[in-house]
Amino acid sequence: MRVAILAHEKFPDRAKTALGVLRYADYDAAAVLDRETAGDRVSDFVPDVQDAPIVEGMADLEASEVDALLIGIAPIGGDFDESWREDVRTALEYGCDVIAGLHYFLEDDEEFARLAAENDCDLWDVRKPPEDLTVSEGVAGEVDAEVVLTVGTDCSVGKMTVSMELARDAREAGYDAAVIPTGQTGIMIEGWGNPIDRVVSDFTAGAVEEMIVEKGDEHDYLFVEGQGSIVHPAYSAVTCGILHGSMPDRLVLCHVAGRDAVHGYESFSLPSIETYVDLYESLSDPVSEAPVVAGALNTAHLEDDEAREAVDDYAAALDAPATDVIRFDTDEVLEALLE
Amino acid sequence: MRVAILAHEKFPDRAKTALGVLRYADYDAAAVLDRETAGDRVSDFVPDVQDAPIVEGMADLEASEVDALLIGIAPIGGDFDESWREDVRTALEYGCDVIAGLHYFLEDDEEFARLAAENDCDLWDVRKPPEDLTVSEGVAGEVDAEVVLTVGTDCSVGKMTVSMELARDAREAGYDAAVIPTGQTGIMIEGWGNPIDRVVSDFTAGAVEEMIVEKGDEHDYLFVEGQGSIVHPAYSAVTCGILHGSMPDRLVLCHVAGRDAVHGYESFSLPSIETYVDLYESLSDPVSEAPVVAGALNTAHLEDDEAREAVDDYAAALDAPATDVIRFDTDEVLEALLE
Repeated sequence: MRVAILAHEKFPDRAKTALGVLRYADYDAAAVLDRETAGDRVSDFVPDVQDAPIVEGMADLEASEVDALLIGIAPIGGDFDESWREDVRTALEYGCDVIAGLHYFLEDDEEFARLAAENDCDLWDVRKPPEDLTVSEGVAGEVDAEVVLTVGTDCSVGKMTVSMELARDAREAGYDAAVIPTGQTGIMIEGWGNPIDRVVSDFTAGAVEEMIVEKGDEHDYLFVEGQGSIVHPAYSAVTCGILHGSMPDRLVLCHVAGRDAVHGYESFSLPSIETYVDLYESLSDPVSEAPVVAGALNTAHLEDDEAREAVDDYAAALDAPATDVIRFDTDEVLEALLE
Repeated sequence: MRVAILAHEKFPDRAKTALGVLRYADYDAAAVLDRETAGDRVSDFVPDVQDAPIVEGMADLEASEVDALLIGIAPIGGDFDESWREDVRTALEYGCDVIAGLHYFLEDDEEFARLAAENDCDLWDVRKPPEDLTVSEGVAGEVDAEVVLTVGTDCSVGKMTVSMELARDAREAGYDAAVIPTGQTGIMIEGWGNPIDRVVSDFTAGAVEEMIVEKGDEHDYLFVEGQGSIVHPAYSAVTCGILHGSMPDRLVLCHVAGRDAVHGYESFSLPSIETYVDLYESLSDPVSEAPVVAGALNTAHLEDDEAREAVDDYAAALDAPATDVIRFDTDEVLEALLE
C-alpha cells in the first residue's frame, strides 16, 4: 500500500507517528505532506528511515500515486485541525482510504463520511476501540509464545520504538517474533491492534489479553508495546492493565538518560531504577512471574561517548544487559530475552 | 425520595446494590420488588437495615406511594432482564424516575425513552460516565481534606461497605467526613459520582481526581471507595487508577477472612497480607505517600469467637488495628485514620 503521510508544520521533530510509520511500517511512502518543509525530502532530515518527497498537500500528488492518506501527527487534545480538511477531502475524492489516530473520529465527520461512501473509501479511526471488548479471563499466560513486555520509567521514553526494533532484530536473527501494538502509532505500523488507552477501564487487561490470545499460538515470541509508567500520576491504570493483561514472561525496562521527573508532571520525581525493577516485578508476580531481564535507554540527546557511559551505568543499575536500540546493537539484550 | 427497589429472585443474598441502598442511602424504601419472596418483609431476612415490604411488582404499589424505581441487582454481563420491563414501564407510567447501574443503558431503550419523555421522568443510568472527563492533572494531593482510600486483596471483599461505615462512624464521632463513590452502588447511595470502571482507561485517574478536587475543600476527611485489587488479573487497572488519581494520605486494607484465591479466577492465589501492604504502599509512594494504617476484615461467614480471632490475626499480619466494620466497633480503626 502506498501512503501519503500528513505531518503539517511538525516534520520531523514533532511527528512521532509519521516517523514511526516511515521507520517500521510495510507501507510504501508516496510522500510526506508538510507545507513548511515542502520541496525537501525525508532524507534531508532523517537518514535512517524510508525516504520520500515532502509536498505541500494531497493536490500535489496524482490520484494514481497513492492508496491511503495517514494522519501522522497528533495535536494536544487529539482534535482534527481544520487546516487539514482540504487534504482529507482530496484524498477521499482520489479514492484513498484515510487512517487517523485522533480523538476526533473521522467517521463521525459528516463531510468525510459522505465522501468516503461516495468514493468507496475506508475511514480507519485507529483510536476507536472495537465494540466487542470485555473483561480479561486471565488466560494470556496459556499461549505458546514467550511474551516480552516493554515497560517504562515514564511516558515518551521509547517503548514503541524498542518493541519494534527488538522484534525486527529478533526476526533478522531467525526467530519468529511479532509485535502486539497497544497505541495509535503501533497500530498504524502493524495494521491492526486495540488502542488500550481508549478502551473502557474495566476492559484494559481484557483488550490486551484478546490480542495475546489471537497471536500467541502463531509466533514463538511476542513483543508487547507497553504504555505509560506504573507510577505515572495520570496513566498508570493503562500500564497496570497491560502488565496483568499480557501476563508477560520477561520485561524490558525503558528509560531516557537523565530524565528525573515525570514528563509534564515535573513535581513528581522518578524513583530509582532499582525501585522500578522492584515495582514492576513485584506487581506482576502474583499474576505472572516476569523478571526485568534487559534495559533500553534512549540517549538521543547525548554525544557518543556519553551515550556509551550512560548505557553502561544503566545496565549496572539494572544488573542486566542494556542498550540504546537505535544507536547501538541489540545482541546482548536479545540474548537475555530470547534464551 | 421514596424508592421501590427491584431485586427479583435475588433478595437478599444476591442483591448487593439493593442491600447497600437499604443500609446506607437517605432514600425512604417504599418496597422491595421480588416475585420470589413477595409477602415477606426485608426485616424477615436482614435485621439491621431499613425495613420495607416485599411485593411482586410495581403494579402492587400505588403511583402516590413512590417517586423512583431503583434497579437493585446486577446480572452477570450487566444486561437488562426482559422480565423487568413491565415494572419499569409501570414506574414510568406512574411518573417515577428510574435509576439503574446496568451496562445496558435505559436511556438507549426506545420504549423507556419515550415513556420517560411522555411522563416527564428522568432515566438515570449511573454507569454512564459524564462526557467531560479527561486525564489527571496530578493535583488531588492539593486538597485540604485528608484522603482515606479503601484498598482490597480482591474484588467483593467489602470496600464499599467499609467506606460507608467508616464515614458514617466518623460523622457520628463529630468529624466532617464524606464518601467519594466510584462504583454503581456507592453512586446510587450517595446520589452522585463517577463510575470509574466505565470511563476511558486513560481517564481512570482523572475521573477520581475530579471528584477529590470537587469535594476536597468542603470536608476534613474523604473516604474514597476503592475497587478491585492491585493484583487482580482483570481489574487491576481500575485499582491502580484510583490509587494514583485519589493521591491518598492513608490506606485501609480490606479482606475476606479465609479467602486465598482470586474470586472467579481461582487459579491465581492471593499473596500474603504483608505482600499487599508492601505493594500498595510502594506503588503509591512515588505519587502520594500513603501507609496502610488499618484493616477491615469481612467475617460474615464465621462464628463470633472465630471472627474475633480472625480479626486479631489480621491485625497482627498488618501490624495495625483492624475490625469487621459490620460486626465489631470501628473505634481503634478510626483513631488510626483520623489522628
